[in-house]
Amino acid sequence: MDGKYKGLKGYSSLYFEKIAILGVGLMGASFAKAVRKLGITAKICGYGRNETTLAWAKENTIIDCYDTTLSGLAKGADLIILATPVGTFEKLAVEISPFLKQGAIVTDVGSVKGSLVYTLEGLMPKGVHFVGAHPIAGKDQSGMKASSDILYKGALCIVTPTDNTDLTALETVKALWSAIGCSVKTLTPEKHDEIFSSISHLPHIAAYAMINVIAEISDTFFEYAGKGFKDTTRIAGSSPDIWSDICLLNKENITSHIGIYIEKLNAILTHIKNSSKDGLIKEFDNARALRKKMNDCLHSNIEDCIDNV
Amino acid sequence: MDGKYKGLKGYSSLYFEKIAILGVGLMGASFAKAVRKLGITAKICGYGRNETTLAWAKENTIIDCYDTTLSGLAKGADLIILATPVGTFEKLAVEISPFLKQGAIVTDVGSVKGSLVYTLEGLMPKGVHFVGAHPIAGKDQSGMKASSDILYKGALCIVTPTDNTDLTALETVKALWSAIGCSVKTLTPEKHDEIFSSISHLPHIAAYAMINVIAEISDTFFEYAGKGFKDTTRIAGSSPDIWSDICLLNKENITSHIGIYIEKLNAILTHIKNSSKDGLIKEFDNARALRKKMNDCLHSNIEDCIDNV
Repeated sequence: MDGKYKGLKGYSSLYFEKIAILGVGLMGASFAKAVRKLGITAKICGYGRNETTLAWAKENTIIDCYDTTLSGLAKGADLIILATPVGTFEKLAVEISPFLKQGAIVTDVGSVKGSLVYTLEGLMPKGVHFVGAHPIAGKDQSGMKASSDILYKGALCIVTPTDNTDLTALETVKALWSAIGCSVKTLTPEKHDEIFSSISHLPHIAAYAMINVIAEISDTFFEYAGKGFKDTTRIAGSSPDIWSDICLLNKENITSHIGIYIEKLNAILTHIKNSSKDGLIKEFDNARALRKKMNDCLHSNIEDCIDNV
Repeated sequence: MDGKYKGLKGYSSLYFEKIAILGVGLMGASFAKAVRKLGITAKICGYGRNETTLAWAKENTIIDCYDTTLSGLAKGADLIILATPVGTFEKLAVEISPFLKQGAIVTDVGSVKGSLVYTLEGLMPKGVHFVGAHPIAGKDQSGMKASSDILYKGALCIVTPTDNTDLTALETVKALWSAIGCSVKTLTPEKHDEIFSSISHLPHIAAYAMINVIAEISDTFFEYAGKGFKDTTRIAGSSPDIWSDICLLNKENITSHIGIYIEKLNAILTHIKNSSKDGLIKEFDNARALRKKMNDCLHSNIEDCIDNV
């Protein structure tokens, strides 16, 4: 940690003159609330498509100001955070780039990294640094009204530097998420996308598809849904806009992982068709043992046990 | 309701001399605790494979007595409840049948009905009545140590009479589950199996398969699981013995519904491969709207909103 951080206990000089948030939804507004609580910025400004929503955010002191132009938003900002659906990042980076001030750090809260990180860092003007970040937090509701200053507290935050990443900017972004209350881990953009395709993107797709199965058979059956069905499909309440972007930007991993999922379902299907109780028990036992291990982790306090979306 | 029920408020004469429970696991032991609390029986006796477990249940007053022979268990029992894995019901019914007393009612807590109900009623001696029941309650843990006197409270209980069902026995079984705190509904055995294949059996299979996907890719990825993944796979902690039986006894519905699930996953997969954001949004929007409706139901108090497994 260098001498730049001041004011916050444990982070000798973590301070920003102006934080600019692109997209003041669940993630952006929760970020705004968390940094305001920390007192590590003089000003928080928002940018979004809907001026009425931004005005509401200002009235409710989620943000201090807002701009409907990216040139206005970028002016004087030393931290810019992308919190719109991940499919808009590239376009926004192109548009804001000419207005970014020297030394500014651009980061994000996107669920996909991979090639997007290289694209975004390539779009930064000289002297402006991009650092990719993905706080693993969320809700099945979206929008700023669902935001909370503790959304990120206790969450894991993955930071994805490349060989080109400025080390001071990297340390600042890590210190920022750590101050917000996250457990920060570093992964390559590629490894990040492989992991989260399997453990997060695939389950979202599976939940959407499961609901659509019942709708096709008979939507009167929803009335009989128990806690098991409700838990299994809770994340089907997530934003279609955000999740369609994620699917398209992490296409290779996700198509491969849907394929493996269908294979595993077909393995069970074959055992059922063959009336093989032994085959089913083997599949289910394996899954149950691994799930139980995760549950034990969930109920303990060990540091590697993560408890956010 | 006839004059047979006495003692319990609202159920003028719901009373059994001896309740015999086959299988004192999560479901059987929870049933024992619930009926003891109601005071509607003089004696609760258990039967199971493991004498040590039965002795523990007796020491802890979950049951009053136990038998390792079905002839001993059946002696004097006026209510016999099958609470072992559903795949054992037919064999147990064959074995206990010669020892059942006239007027006894045999019921169950199994998750599959369909042809099994007709098989079981056909195995009853003259003057002994079978009534199929399925309380929609459970936990991701199994065994009597996870049992609770409130497991069934507020749950839906499906009762599945056929044209052959004795109407007095049917009313007794309905009154029993109602007294325990369930909301009782009647369905044909066939409709029951179609509904629960889609809304319960398929999600269990999906959860087991999902865990096995991660295990195949890399079991180190479990460390990154968030709340979404944990909720989606919670029911993969369920008993492989019970769930393999369910899969085999509800084979036709389940194979058909796994097929529809794979179709829905393939529809999403195709949209991803074609980079069709519109196609994805359509699939996800449809699912989200239906899931949200279910959630609204969950948070209201209307009677049709059911909140158990």
